This record gives sequence, structure tokens and C-alpha cells, in this order.
Amino acid sequence: MDFLKVSSKSSPSSVAGAIAGMVKDNVEVNLQCIGAGAVNQAMKAVAIARGFLIPCGYDISVAPVFSEIDIDGTSRTALRMAVYVHSIQHTSAASSTQNN
Amino acid sequence: MDFLKVSSKSSPSSVAGAIAGMVKDNVEVNLQCIGAGAVNQAMKAVAIARGFLIPCGYDISVAPVFSEIDIDGTSRTALRMAVYVHSIQHTSAASSTQNN
Repeated sequence: MDFLKVSSKSSPSSVAGAIAGMVKDNVEVNLQCIGAGAVNQAMKAVAIARGFLIPCGYDISVAPVFSEIDIDGTSRTALRMAVYVHSIQHTSAASSTQNN
Repeated sequence: MDFLKVSSKSSPSSVAGAIAGMVKDNVEVNLQCIGAGAVNQAMKAVAIARGFLIPCGYDISVAPVFSEIDIDGTSRTALRMAVYVHSIQHTSAASSTQNN
């Protein structure tokens, strides 16, 4: 399985664009983060990607799991996140045009 | 709407227990985090909560959104995460007994 590797220096908007493109192309998306800064950038990216995707009829969410990975012979705990894709049912309740 | 407020000092296992209990009680769960450390603790908590819930037939995922909140007169950007609950269909494909 391939992972989008997100680091603390990743640009959330760039990662968001990658996620949104893959979701629109029906490609399975999995993120891999090591460290709090990376997890934060990944979650910001998912929040931004939701803004791209919701108008197109998709919502996404992430399901995290711990994973021990080997980096240069050292074991590190990564947080891997599967991106779940949800089709949005367009109803009046889902409308965001409540300007009252 | 009430939020489980997660900080960088929150215990992931304690937050996980709270999430799992609320999901089992059919209570809507929303997390609120400010800062990378808080987001990291929240995602660790969700990973742990999945371990509690999946054997009970529920999976969960989180959908993040940015939110400007006021703390002591200062505007801060929080990451709020709605917890989505998914019923697991028990099929052989979902089995984790692949020991080959």
C-alpha cells in the first residue's frame, strides 16, 4: 500500500490538493505521519481538502491507526490515516445557504 | 454543540475511553483542539478508541474543520473534528485472522 507521507514541513494546501485529486480519481488515499507536527499538518490538509471536495459531492474523514515503521534501522511509531470517502446526499438540510 | 476539549496534555487513553463510551451510548462526539500537540493527542485517542470500538461492531473516523474561537478576548484557530460512526458489516473480508 502506498502512503502520502506528511511531515511537519509539508504544506497543508499542497497535501490537500493531492488528497482531493486522488479522491476525485477514485484512488485510495492513506496518509502517514511521524510526530505531532506531521499529524497537525495532515489534519489541516484534510480540513482544506474537505472544502475542495464537499462542493463536488464528496465528504472525507480519516481513520487513524498506529503503525511501527523502520526508519534507518530505528523503530518509530507512525500514525497512519485511511481516508474514508462519503457521497453527500444533497438535501435542503445539507445546504450551507442559511443566511438568516 | 458540546465539544470534548483536547489539549496537548490530555491523556490519549482517557480521551479514547470518553469517545468510546459516547459512541456506544449513541451520543454525538465532537473534539476541539488548539495547537499541534492537541491535534496529535486527539488523533492518538481516536486510534485507541477504534481499538475499543471495532470489536463491538463500530468503526469511527474524524472529519476536521477549522473554527475561529475566542479565548480570553483573543481569536485562535481551533481544529474541530466531528466523529463519524460506521457500523461494521461482519464478512470474511473484514476478518483479521490472516496469519499466512
